Amino acid sequence: MSEPARKKHPKLSPEPPRGMRDILPDEAELRDATAQTILAVYRRHGFRRVETPALESIQVLTRGEGGENEKLIYKVLKRGEKLDLEHAMSEADLVDLGLRFDLTVPLARYYANNHARLPKPLKAVQIGPVWRAERPQKGRYRQFTQCDIDILGIKSDVAEIELILATTEALAALGLEDLTVRINDRRLLNAMARWCGFDPDRYDSVFITLDKWDRLDRAAIVDELGRAGHPAPAIDRMMQLFTDFGGLPGVKRQWDSAKAAGDDDAFDALKRIIEAVRAEGVGIALDPTLVRGMSYYTGPIFEIKSSRFPSSIAGGGRYDEMIGKILGRDVPATGFSIGFERIVSILTERASGLGRREKRIAMVFEETTPDLRPVLEAARQLRAEGLSVSLEIRATNRGRQREALAAHGFEGVADFDGTERPEVRWFANRERQAEPGDEG
Amino acid sequence: MSEPARKKHPKLSPEPPRGMRDILPDEAELRDATAQTILAVYRRHGFRRVETPALESIQVLTRGEGGENEKLIYKVLKRGEKLDLEHAMSEADLVDLGLRFDLTVPLARYYANNHARLPKPLKAVQIGPVWRAERPQKGRYRQFTQCDIDILGIKSDVAEIELILATTEALAALGLEDLTVRINDRRLLNAMARWCGFDPDRYDSVFITLDKWDRLDRAAIVDELGRAGHPAPAIDRMMQLFTDFGGLPGVKRQWDSAKAAGDDDAFDALKRIIEAVRAEGVGIALDPTLVRGMSYYTGPIFEIKSSRFPSSIAGGGRYDEMIGKILGRDVPATGFSIGFERIVSILTERASGLGRREKRIAMVFEETTPDLRPVLEAARQLRAEGLSVSLEIRATNRGRQREALAAHGFEGVADFDGTERPEVRWFANRERQAEPGDEG
Repeated sequence: MSEPARKKHPKLSPEPPRGMRDILPDEAELRDATAQTILAVYRRHGFRRVETPALESIQVLTRGEGGENEKLIYKVLKRGEKLDLEHAMSEADLVDLGLRFDLTVPLARYYANNHARLPKPLKAVQIGPVWRAERPQKGRYRQFTQCDIDILGIKSDVAEIELILATTEALAALGLEDLTVRINDRRLLNAMARWCGFDPDRYDSVFITLDKWDRLDRAAIVDELGRAGHPAPAIDRMMQLFTDFGGLPGVKRQWDSAKAAGDDDAFDALKRIIEAVRAEGVGIALDPTLVRGMSYYTGPIFEIKSSRFPSSIAGGGRYDEMIGKILGRDVPATGFSIGFERIVSILTERASGLGRREKRIAMVFEETTPDLRPVLEAARQLRAEGLSVSLEIRATNRGRQREALAAHGFEGVADFDGTERPEVRWFANRERQAEPGDEG
Repeated sequence: MSEPARKKHPKLSPEPPRGMRDILPDEAELRDATAQTILAVYRRHGFRRVETPALESIQVLTRGEGGENEKLIYKVLKRGEKLDLEHAMSEADLVDLGLRFDLTVPLARYYANNHARLPKPLKAVQIGPVWRAERPQKGRYRQFTQCDIDILGIKSDVAEIELILATTEALAALGLEDLTVRINDRRLLNAMARWCGFDPDRYDSVFITLDKWDRLDRAAIVDELGRAGHPAPAIDRMMQLFTDFGGLPGVKRQWDSAKAAGDDDAFDALKRIIEAVRAEGVGIALDPTLVRGMSYYTGPIFEIKSSRFPSSIAGGGRYDEMIGKILGRDVPATGFSIGFERIVSILTERASGLGRREKRIAMVFEETTPDLRPVLEAARQLRAEGLSVSLEIRATNRGRQREALAAHGFEGVADFDGTERPEVRWFANRERQAEPGDEG
């Protein structure tokens, strides 16, 4: 006990910053295994790993592509001579960098910076942390992991087909079952709004309400659109359109009758995507009310649900104009974002075995053993048999030590007894019911 | 080409922030494989994964354990109401968080916060980015990956033995050969300085010079210590001590004759560590001039070199007092830091195959194919054979497409010809000589 040291340093709060968290071993290992499972599937589909720094210049982060997220940036103080506190008039004078709030904006910058050295097309997979200074709430953290998969440089809907098939395969590899894909197209949404007669400058407001079609009843939709000041005849036409909706042929009929077209491509592309994906045995359906929030989408948009969970676990769409804004020439692009944190919490709840690889045992020995060599030799022997072996000094109370080992996920114990290969005594399952690590 | 959009957003520099970098696919995959190889070895030795947030409170980061690194913190501006620009007098009023500059300080906080739910002892492995606003220089970046392995809660030198054996095994698994370990003990260094007669308040200054024993000649050492104002008789005794040095028995002799002891434990522990590690076939030797920079070390300190590279690739030591400063009671701790970035650059230079798992091929098909099903079926067939298959739309110039594919690391191409399993034509090696991804 070093009293003087503690006098110099008064006790600090050991908690992580507000809204952030420490990850305990069981979850950390599940997260690792989840990421590796996802990466292995995309690798088989020819996707490559790319990585960008956590920090980007404030200019890159605040160009509008991030929408509301741009208000939630953790901004970094300028350093050294660049920081002039005396003459700083506003926040903008004080900061030059920010932590990324998503992986899409950094990918666009990355492609613009490195395109000459990258494969064309680029099929990219990213997994990494992002930061948003949101109001803390249960289950949402200010640092969380995103997993984005993008295809840059393919204009054809072949890109969407590949993305959807690889992504459903990755989710299935994680044990998520009964996956269904919903798909729509930003061009169809725009044509619909045009045909109904909404103000072209206010389509986004219409779509925000349409996005709630699943959750609100019809009257509430009409009410919300009315209160937002949209013209009643346009609201009527929209309600009629979606209430009569009868799947793909129904939309085609509406689409034809609306003659809003000039953009038949959108419909043909959706049809081709749906047919190809269905032929591979994956459930996919057009949902003309699917909106997805970001305004940068320009073509097909999509989401994936698993029947056992209410909200979607992956979503994305085509954004053909974003990279052009940095690079100076347009590069077609489409991508998926997998809800990594949601998946980890699903897998944690169902006590998925994904994070557990080797069987984990403790090899217990006397600290006073004069010669460690036989102990090390025995541990090596057990590792060679495929076990994870942790050397543990024998405690005075052997029963309590055994309980603690079981509680922390050890599956068995080998008491070092001087033999080359001590016997492993496996714990009964009930001993491992209360795993402290699972609380996190 | 969307001209209006580009008018609104003037062209930005696509480069990452100064001192940071984008990681191209070949390197990103090598980094992934390096991390997974390291983790697999420690997992077999019973180490668990832990993860902390990238941000810590400024109070946690500036308690002195970080030494010079505390001057290099990226500090984060307060948000919302907490930010009061008008009344801010200094930098301290403006910031509340900082990006971590190492993984040791966060681990100490993590243990203090979670010890009740963690195994005792905790054997922890961390891999993650850290940030330091250093002056940019070749090969050093302001964001880089650290890999730390720590054992908390074991006072016995068994912890050092485990750490050294697991770490040399991990480095060997990465293909690093002829590993040798150098070891010393902070208590021996202090006893040496005491015996020589240096001023007890200025031992750190002595050790900084001693640390250069490998690089400077004897006269330069004497000169540097003299200019630092240390007494000539003390300098003389030290030079004599190290010049006469004859390995472990030599130190023991000096140690005894100096009677500086009272701390025979240090010597016995070193002896036990060296004997156990040697018995496992790993080269280890006492180096009484080994210092290691951080002032928080309290016992054995160590470094690992590979014969083919001049500087050390891993190092660490015992720091029994750091966690107590946050937790309020001492917890014995010892740890290793592996030079992740150095290892990646060694593996890149020797074109290690570590990042390449499945053989990667492209399956080329006509974009206008009316029915994609046979294409998808053929790709699935090849993936089932263990290949990574990327669907690629056939280019007009097939020869150039083939060259580009080879240049980007594809190992072969399958031209889709309508059959279930199109033939793979493997590229000759010379076609893959200039891989653009290798430049990064």
